[in-house]
Amino acid sequence: METIDCRADRHAVTRLRDGTWMDAHDDLAEEVPVALEYNGISHAVMLATPADLEEFALGFSLSEGLIASPQECHDITTSRSSAGITVHLAIGNAAFAQLKERRRNLAGRTGCGLCGTESLEHVLRSLPRLSRPAPPRPLSPSGIRRALAGLDALQPLNRMTGGTHAAAWCAPDGELRFVFEDVGRHNALDKLIGAMARSRADFADGFALITSRASVEMVQKAITVGMPALVAISAPTSLAVRVAREHGMTLVAFARGDDFAAYAHRANIRAE
Amino acid sequence: METIDCRADRHAVTRLRDGTWMDAHDDLAEEVPVALEYNGISHAVMLATPADLEEFALGFSLSEGLIASPQECHDITTSRSSAGITVHLAIGNAAFAQLKERRRNLAGRTGCGLCGTESLEHVLRSLPRLSRPAPPRPLSPSGIRRALAGLDALQPLNRMTGGTHAAAWCAPDGELRFVFEDVGRHNALDKLIGAMARSRADFADGFALITSRASVEMVQKAITVGMPALVAISAPTSLAVRVAREHGMTLVAFARGDDFAAYAHRANIRAE
Repeated sequence: METIDCRADRHAVTRLRDGTWMDAHDDLAEEVPVALEYNGISHAVMLATPADLEEFALGFSLSEGLIASPQECHDITTSRSSAGITVHLAIGNAAFAQLKERRRNLAGRTGCGLCGTESLEHVLRSLPRLSRPAPPRPLSPSGIRRALAGLDALQPLNRMTGGTHAAAWCAPDGELRFVFEDVGRHNALDKLIGAMARSRADFADGFALITSRASVEMVQKAITVGMPALVAISAPTSLAVRVAREHGMTLVAFARGDDFAAYAHRANIRAE
Repeated sequence: METIDCRADRHAVTRLRDGTWMDAHDDLAEEVPVALEYNGISHAVMLATPADLEEFALGFSLSEGLIASPQECHDITTSRSSAGITVHLAIGNAAFAQLKERRRNLAGRTGCGLCGTESLEHVLRSLPRLSRPAPPRPLSPSGIRRALAGLDALQPLNRMTGGTHAAAWCAPDGELRFVFEDVGRHNALDKLIGAMARSRADFADGFALITSRASVEMVQKAITVGMPALVAISAPTSLAVRVAREHGMTLVAFARGDDFAAYAHRANIRAE
């Protein structure tokens, strides 16, 4: 095994093709345990692609509602150990008090699977209804097609490894503004959200494009930061559609080539 | 929205195809918050397809090392509320004492993302080296091909919704013995493991076939219950390959049609 960069490793592989075994080498996506620590308290551990971790930590904090604005996060640093990478966040007093209160309520429970979720009641957390159900500039079929057509070229890690998801932010006309890749689809979306927050991009003007399925967690994250529309290349779940409908988010899925399917608030997509 | 069965819902959808909008209905995979409760203590909440939840709970308990054998689980019942489904497990004293000790060590930490994992050190947990690195009956290319060819017909939920993963158990000759589907790939594998444990199937005689990628969590679960080989249709991660190599598990990925790639312990696949 040879390390290519921090995001991929080269491994020996034996391929069976057309009935013949061949020795070769493959570049595979790296996957590293990443811990998020708020003001010295460990909150979450996830497996992620070790790149853009400050964006990841900021985006996770925003999309999970741990902070309400990027200004509540004063500092982000990372440290490495043999077990993985820790991202240390310094957050404001109000956000930290809320986080501690939330943790006190856990009362011996172990959150699991859902990024610190401790009970059934907290899974479908209360979300804001999107304040601008009709985005300033509407989506259009041609914008969605243009974004789809351009995405592949902006996924270098996936082209190398075949093993990562991407999340992109697109202007209404389909121009790709930000693209992030990760072995986890939630992580890719969080990296995108963190990068947009850092550059003060407008979450309300455009749409998120994801290479994965649209599960309820993806929809919740997008709604929490105020994205008006989510376009997924693969299938949506039933719960994701219900949550998108209730909260005013336009949800498009099975977006491939020229065709796609609109499951929620299709009126926000301009006819052409 | 109309409920088809417990696993899918019918939703209105507007499709854009060849430039024309068409109203239609789609069956989408259901996704429900599921809490696992051990002897009355809530341990984990995950989003899952609401079917085969007793198998899921038993499989999760085994694959995460919370119990060492199915005999340590005396009873499994489920209850529903508006927030989701709770699976109540009654486990033996020794396993419960260990679980409580583990929870005491959390000391105010919230496990996250990794099913109750509280720190970096616990992510790459200590796993047994597979006791029988060479399975009693070796894998063969023809067995892998036969299993792949038969899998699609045994995924009714995915054929209906396009939104679920499957995990199957295959005899060395490729006969498909068990197939489980879920919106989550970890859940599908846990359902398979629980069903195999219930029917006292031999985890060492055959291989697991998964429609997803092979991440380290999938490899860890398979090794924990003693599966000697994992075959994935999509890509492996670098960390998954390293863990499989260290623990004696045969890892095959990119298994499609007649071709595949072996990343770990390829010597356990018989030449043909």
